[in-house]
Amino acid sequence: MSEYSGGKRDMKKVRIGMIGYKFMGKAHSHAYRDVPFYFDLDTEPVLQTMVGRDEQAVKLASEKLGWQSYETDWRRLLERDDIDVIDIGTPNHMHAEIAIAAAKAGKHILCEKPLALNVQEAKEILDAVQKAGVIHMVSYNYRFAPAIQYAKHLISTGALGSIYHFRAQYLQDWIMDPGFPLVWRLRKEIGGSGALGDLMAHSIDLARFLVGEISEVSGMMETFIKQRPIGEMTGGLSATVDSDSKGDVTVDDATAALARFENGALGVFEATRFGRGNRNGNRMEINGSKGSIRWDMENMNQLELYLEDDPRGMQGFRTIDCTEVEHPFAKAYWPAGHGIGYEHTFINLIHELMRSISTGTVPSPNFEDGYRNQVILETIERSNIERRWLNVSY
Amino acid sequence: MSEYSGGKRDMKKVRIGMIGYKFMGKAHSHAYRDVPFYFDLDTEPVLQTMVGRDEQAVKLASEKLGWQSYETDWRRLLERDDIDVIDIGTPNHMHAEIAIAAAKAGKHILCEKPLALNVQEAKEILDAVQKAGVIHMVSYNYRFAPAIQYAKHLISTGALGSIYHFRAQYLQDWIMDPGFPLVWRLRKEIGGSGALGDLMAHSIDLARFLVGEISEVSGMMETFIKQRPIGEMTGGLSATVDSDSKGDVTVDDATAALARFENGALGVFEATRFGRGNRNGNRMEINGSKGSIRWDMENMNQLELYLEDDPRGMQGFRTIDCTEVEHPFAKAYWPAGHGIGYEHTFINLIHELMRSISTGTVPSPNFEDGYRNQVILETIERSNIERRWLNVSY
Amino acid sequence: MSEYSGGKRDMKKVRIGMIGYKFMGKAHSHAYRDVPFYFDLDTEPVLQTMVGRDEQAVKLASEKLGWQSYETDWRRLLERDDIDVIDIGTPNHMHAEIAIAAAKAGKHILCEKPLALNVQEAKEILDAVQKAGVIHMVSYNYRFAPAIQYAKHLISTGALGSIYHFRAQYLQDWIMDPGFPLVWRLRKEIGGSGALGDLMAHSIDLARFLVGEISEVSGMMETFIKQRPIGEMTGGLSATVDSDSKGDVTVDDATAALARFENGALGVFEATRFGRGNRNGNRMEINGSKGSIRWDMENMNQLELYLEDDPRGMQGFRTIDCTEVEHPFAKAYWPAGHGIGYEHTFINLIHELMRSISTGTVPSPNFEDGYRNQVILETIERSNIERRWLNVSY
Amino acid sequence: MSEYSGGKRDMKKVRIGMIGYKFMGKAHSHAYRDVPFYFDLDTEPVLQTMVGRDEQAVKLASEKLGWQSYETDWRRLLERDDIDVIDIGTPNHMHAEIAIAAAKAGKHILCEKPLALNVQEAKEILDAVQKAGVIHMVSYNYRFAPAIQYAKHLISTGALGSIYHFRAQYLQDWIMDPGFPLVWRLRKEIGGSGALGDLMAHSIDLARFLVGEISEVSGMMETFIKQRPIGEMTGGLSATVDSDSKGDVTVDDATAALARFENGALGVFEATRFGRGNRNGNRMEINGSKGSIRWDMENMNQLELYLEDDPRGMQGFRTIDCTEVEHPFAKAYWPAGHGIGYEHTFINLIHELMRSISTGTVPSPNFEDGYRNQVILETIERSNIERRWLNVSY
Repeated sequence: MSEYSGGKRDMKKVRIGMIGYKFMGKAHSHAYRDVPFYFDLDTEPVLQTMVGRDEQAVKLASEKLGWQSYETDWRRLLERDDIDVIDIGTPNHMHAEIAIAAAKAGKHILCEKPLALNVQEAKEILDAVQKAGVIHMVSYNYRFAPAIQYAKHLISTGALGSIYHFRAQYLQDWIMDPGFPLVWRLRKEIGGSGALGDLMAHSIDLARFLVGEISEVSGMMETFIKQRPIGEMTGGLSATVDSDSKGDVTVDDATAALARFENGALGVFEATRFGRGNRNGNRMEINGSKGSIRWDMENMNQLELYLEDDPRGMQGFRTIDCTEVEHPFAKAYWPAGHGIGYEHTFINLIHELMRSISTGTVPSPNFEDGYRNQVILETIERSNIERRWLNVSY
Repeated sequence: MSEYSGGKRDMKKVRIGMIGYKFMGKAHSHAYRDVPFYFDLDTEPVLQTMVGRDEQAVKLASEKLGWQSYETDWRRLLERDDIDVIDIGTPNHMHAEIAIAAAKAGKHILCEKPLALNVQEAKEILDAVQKAGVIHMVSYNYRFAPAIQYAKHLISTGALGSIYHFRAQYLQDWIMDPGFPLVWRLRKEIGGSGALGDLMAHSIDLARFLVGEISEVSGMMETFIKQRPIGEMTGGLSATVDSDSKGDVTVDDATAALARFENGALGVFEATRFGRGNRNGNRMEINGSKGSIRWDMENMNQLELYLEDDPRGMQGFRTIDCTEVEHPFAKAYWPAGHGIGYEHTFINLIHELMRSISTGTVPSPNFEDGYRNQVILETIERSNIERRWLNVSY
Repeated sequence: MSEYSGGKRDMKKVRIGMIGYKFMGKAHSHAYRDVPFYFDLDTEPVLQTMVGRDEQAVKLASEKLGWQSYETDWRRLLERDDIDVIDIGTPNHMHAEIAIAAAKAGKHILCEKPLALNVQEAKEILDAVQKAGVIHMVSYNYRFAPAIQYAKHLISTGALGSIYHFRAQYLQDWIMDPGFPLVWRLRKEIGGSGALGDLMAHSIDLARFLVGEISEVSGMMETFIKQRPIGEMTGGLSATVDSDSKGDVTVDDATAALARFENGALGVFEATRFGRGNRNGNRMEINGSKGSIRWDMENMNQLELYLEDDPRGMQGFRTIDCTEVEHPFAKAYWPAGHGIGYEHTFINLIHELMRSISTGTVPSPNFEDGYRNQVILETIERSNIERRWLNVSY
Repeated sequence: MSEYSGGKRDMKKVRIGMIGYKFMGKAHSHAYRDVPFYFDLDTEPVLQTMVGRDEQAVKLASEKLGWQSYETDWRRLLERDDIDVIDIGTPNHMHAEIAIAAAKAGKHILCEKPLALNVQEAKEILDAVQKAGVIHMVSYNYRFAPAIQYAKHLISTGALGSIYHFRAQYLQDWIMDPGFPLVWRLRKEIGGSGALGDLMAHSIDLARFLVGEISEVSGMMETFIKQRPIGEMTGGLSATVDSDSKGDVTVDDATAALARFENGALGVFEATRFGRGNRNGNRMEINGSKGSIRWDMENMNQLELYLEDDPRGMQGFRTIDCTEVEHPFAKAYWPAGHGIGYEHTFINLIHELMRSISTGTVPSPNFEDGYRNQVILETIERSNIERRWLNVSY
């Protein structure tokens, strides 16, 4: 029997309309292309149309990234009946308008995180998709690292026992130069928040996925560099300065938060864009009564696992390379020890989206997760202003 | 010329009276014995008398650990004129009474940390030693790891630039078994607090030493196991259960705190005795504008250093083995790459005490540090109760 | 300006005929698909035809992996004028016949490693391609890890000074179970050798690439399990047992070799399929007069670099995440700290093949490298038999 | 009950005469002082007399290191009846004369490694102590790291199954500067050999201790820098240049060797003083049918252990901090996670010597081990000259 049991069957085409073509546009495009190569599914994504306001740029991007056509107005996508999924990879301030309109148009939606600029928007988005009955998914890609999915398996099966501690740091350093410009990610009206929504939102998603709901938080936010020259993102995490004149940075450079989970666990979160030397230091440790795990995105295939039930004298954190057939998603790729990378978190995520569309089941994480995440983000922001603990109420 | 330039010169004898003979009694005793072996000083500690209430036990301990005599009542030490230094290694609730009496008796004092049960006691102790004009030192031993002293050097000379972030975790797991007894370290009237004063106090000392004063905090404390069988410590971190009857745990099993430093840096602290798999996970990371450092007591000789001024493409955290002649204290020991251990933090600490007594200068850390640390501990406790940020006022 | 400067230009199509569809067939197929997505080139690979003897299997594979058609006889490819490149991903015993025929047919050739079963075959292959004037490349993919390419840059620019030591281990453990069957990789007439040609060949390629030519070797080879049940590979590194009857293992389970380089450096090589716990432990360290590097495929994005010119006290191995724009190939992928995986070594390798075809220049590594590698492999084998050092003569 | 069960009992005094007062003199002196502090034994070492030819230097050293008296002629020690043990810490060329004389004088002997300059000397030493019936021990201190002793326990109890591979590197870099002088360790008539006897001897001892006897070897030796200015060691691994005139380096800067063990395992050894960036990189990995271990002296408390019997998906190398009560020697020191250092390998070694003297049993490693080690060293040297494999015959 062949290892390629799938072959080119009579697969349902799922036609994608992707709005945005920079960092996330590239990551999603690649994932759509690769998911049928690696996985056997009944559905197959079609890279139908890419949308961007700058015609010349979106034309080049769509050709480069493998899209069949392009548009310059996202509203056009909603009118077309050859688009099944709207993929929102725009700056955050456009999520709500697009998502609500897409829901009304009966399109399935994949939306980049954070779901919205604030809780009110997020709630409106959630209401819209629930009313429309479309499939909705929010792109918290890191939970699709095989090591994280395996961590979920370990916790669900009780291998760690009762969870006492969740701690996460998400440390980057790409804006530390005071000359780095005031890009959209540093402006509240476009990004919603800074390190909070960009980075800590990922840690909160992992926390909710792995440990459960958060009931109360105490936050601390800081903007170390208050003004920057005007400029814009050019792709990835790069930017160009457009002007010598400066504008106010209106989001947080760094945020930290204490949290209590509903199940009694304690959470400590820290996110910063001023973590010198940490390019993408997305780390996490969980301590339970029977065991602990540690994970660091910079060595994303490896999960460190401690089990108290190991014989005395032989206890210690073991480094599991989550590339074995027993590990979620790993079988689709390469033999054990032949690791995967950042982009595979998106391939796995798109697999989940396709699986969901194929089966009509709710994907995870969905807009309910996006909404709850947003509630936590906003509660942290309010806590920082009020200088006290606040309950998280969904 | 010999490498042993010191030899047995006409050294001033500094006669020690050590109160306590268990974990810290052993650690201090060893350090007194070893400091003249490794260092060239004008003073030489004499292990004069060890004190404990249980005569049979203190007799055995004093003989084993190399003391010339023993006493069963610490007050006797103060009356003797052949004792120059009182070393307080008792449970925390006895620190104040002993320290104040020792100061009045004109003895120099080394006191285990935390300095006292609370701020009021700490202040009284501080006043007493200042009034008496004796040398006073508090035993925050981890700042005597060569890697920490070298980190201090790096920060002082500006190698890290402006400091933005200090984060520390101190994770242990020795009381996680619900059958572990209610030893003195779990009783507020004797220990003052739990993970807070036992573990986080060390992180706070490192923070103050390396970054500066803390201006405000928001704390979170938790006791996961509320009742335990009665029992007592037997040395090290071991204990025996004395009774089936249970008593209330009155200290924190875990504490976390957010903090702001006077210089604008953000601090995130976490200490727990429920960090499964972490036997003595005392870790720290500092991010500055020009560089970052990371340290973990479990590999105590190694300091990770990132320097932004390294050429692009060649940037990364380098692992410095702080065993070279350029590293503080290291020259006294072994050739580069031949590491030292936990006990050497105490040898270096006693070296500082001897140096201070020899020169009549103030050692670091002293009771002012012990007091300020206590203020921070207590502010965290109050913050936890009041569920809001509180200013730290000394 | 757009980050996608390439777009869909008038690119030259390079039509591939791929022979083999299992582990390497999958890896190469994916790379052909992805190279135009990530890189801007004047040439574009077309997945024209995949070849396999089992029609049902190759049909499924070709559809799954994105090929436009399939064939069951590789000779058919050579007759077709719509095939520009023959990609040989078969078991090793077929390399020579196919490569020589392909060269005669004027096809460019990419051949999996090792180039042949023995030196004589390798020489015939090399002669054939040189006579035909076609582009030829051998698939030593690990030298295309960005960290390795950056190591090459460091050595070439003198950052490590004179090289004294090269040491490499390539450790796997997938055949340790005595019940693992006698697949083609364990039969000399098909595989040529075992750990030697499968694993150490990679280390030798890295050594030649980074340090230079090897002048003499002393080898040691061992087959720990002499007989195994009959069976075959099923893809990746998996296999099925087809029969209870056993056959002789005719290749090495493990090989080690000492070597001297022409430039005076010493080499120590070790390769094994009995390295329990090492799934794909491909490690290397180089020591030079001015610096050292370490690399491990299990954390393939990271290069450890020590520089003697770092200030005293600040010396140590730094961990460089080779995902920055300064690192070879890295710019094509994701922002710094967002790592790539095993499959990207092939994408980079195919990029080199396409670049070579586009510019008409000789790619690296080519069949001259394949031949020299084979000479070293065979000299190690003879050395093992003769129990003495042997000169390597090309 | 007290944790100090020992106390000051009626212990037998074992009076030491130590010959040598530099690096090893310091290490041994410290160990004699500390062993009664940490361990409960029936014997207690007395630091009776230290010997050195330079009276002023040995006087200072003996006082500094805690010896009761000093001598300038080692022969005097043998005449005295208040010396029970001769501890030979001289350069290697003096070992034989002293050891043989000491044996004749009925003294127990601890000798630094390697035991002698060559096999003939080593045999004479071994014959002498066997004839005299004295206790004899050779100072291969690294096997006294708790992690190594625990590795021995694991192998002995079958946890790793049949051993297939032993590989060790011992890498230093302290003589790489061409201006580093021609100290005794670089002169064959005094040191016997270079990296071979200084470093690889340790790896060979670990190999014999953990895996078993070696039956054949193939060696490679190199001296990268052939001439150096005249000078001498000043302690530790430091040296001073005494003269501008140069002399020939007559020992190896680096040695590598392949080996086969009697039990069928393969060995790969490498030792160098040109391993830039490795101050004391003493590393080892063992692969067996059921598990593997890794160890690195730079993190000496940690043993990495892989067990094939761990559940699939949960397999990986675990990092055991060998500071738990279950680990050899660890209980004598500090609580789990409070690590020890280089000097403790000597404390544990002296414990073994004292235990042996106390019980009249043969210590391990003894001169039989020293002799066999020497045979292997010399066989490697001859193999290098003859350029072929040689059998090891004891």
